[in-house]
Amino acid sequence: MWQQTTISLKARSRGFYLITSEIESNLRQLGDYKIGVAHLLLQHTSASLSLNENADPSVRVDFEAFINHLAPERAAYYTHTYEGDDDMPAHLKSSLLGVSLTLPISNGHFNLGTWQGIYLGEHRDFGGSRKVLVTLQGEPL
Amino acid sequence: MWQQTTISLKARSRGFYLITSEIESNLRQLGDYKIGVAHLLLQHTSASLSLNENADPSVRVDFEAFINHLAPERAAYYTHTYEGDDDMPAHLKSSLLGVSLTLPISNGHFNLGTWQGIYLGEHRDFGGSRKVLVTLQGEPL
Amino acid sequence: MWQQTTISLKARSRGFYLITSEIESNLRQLGDYKIGVAHLLLQHTSASLSLNENADPSVRVDFEAFINHLAPERAAYYTHTYEGDDDMPAHLKSSLLGVSLTLPISNGHFNLGTWQGIYLGEHRDFGGSRKVLVTLQGEPL
Repeated sequence: MWQQTTISLKARSRGFYLITSEIESNLRQLGDYKIGVAHLLLQHTSASLSLNENADPSVRVDFEAFINHLAPERAAYYTHTYEGDDDMPAHLKSSLLGVSLTLPISNGHFNLGTWQGIYLGEHRDFGGSRKVLVTLQGEPL
Repeated sequence: MWQQTTISLKARSRGFYLITSEIESNLRQLGDYKIGVAHLLLQHTSASLSLNENADPSVRVDFEAFINHLAPERAAYYTHTYEGDDDMPAHLKSSLLGVSLTLPISNGHFNLGTWQGIYLGEHRDFGGSRKVLVTLQGEPL
Repeated sequence: MWQQTTISLKARSRGFYLITSEIESNLRQLGDYKIGVAHLLLQHTSASLSLNENADPSVRVDFEAFINHLAPERAAYYTHTYEGDDDMPAHLKSSLLGVSLTLPISNGHFNLGTWQGIYLGEHRDFGGSRKVLVTLQGEPL
């Protein structure tokens, strides 16, 4: 059984955000699957999706500091500079962390580890609303 | 409906390349699916697949400069050195960016964001032709 | 045809490990599929799964040295510090390398490149046993 739907995430300023609840609340169709997988594609090139620690907000704070060190603004060797200082680093961060997740479904719910949550990395200063194309498949519940 | 096929990418020198068209032109089977996913596995350990900006070639130039800074040649601590200076960094770049993509299919086409394209990262100086094993599945169109 | 199962990996100290055989020997169900995909989710936030070189152990040694340089302990800007010096770097490494793999199945076996193997990155000093949730799907053999 296949379903496809688009979720529009609310606009956020630069940083890392836990969006598990925002995804789940827009994905009632999860309840239709006994065993399956949900494929999430963030349809952008300057933001990212990843899985990480869902409990302590300080982890997301440190992700933002770390990734800014890893892919700095105004590196001397950047040639793609006309869209702003935050643009080329945002592309790099997006590919390092990835824009796609495949999540297992069991009995109508994501089956993640106890401490895992979905992170949105918003890598532009003001990236606006972001779209996630979700493709669901599996055995009906 | 399942199909599996291998695409041989043409040989390229070190750098990042937009290969969306090369993949699509070797994947007529995409047209068979209404809703589905295509799984691409680059069957190598010194190259990568990722999604990023499909418009301005300067982004790919900056990816190459950045990744060479991130995973430098001749780091003092490398022990795996007998296959050439470009070899161990190529393995690292391959795992940081990944060798696999899952792409949604809608109505016979990849359903990517407007600005998204498939990047091949060729991380060896001369890596030769690269193979991509594609597994397609979905509802027939 | 869908199947879901959990594999408990044995506990390992910090480092990179080739676990292809450990996964396969716990996944007899692979033999049920002619064409398919196996989705592996490591249900943790301080370890990683990736694909890389399966032959020379020196590559794994260099991965560990590299990733420790990339995401160092005791960075001045870390705020999430109360779980030990190895904790916050472990979260970062986990998201950079990823916790999930989708692997193609052909005729009852993983269909990887000749030199590809599954790496477990154990990023805590002592992370204990790690769980991998495997979701299998495909056409019956």
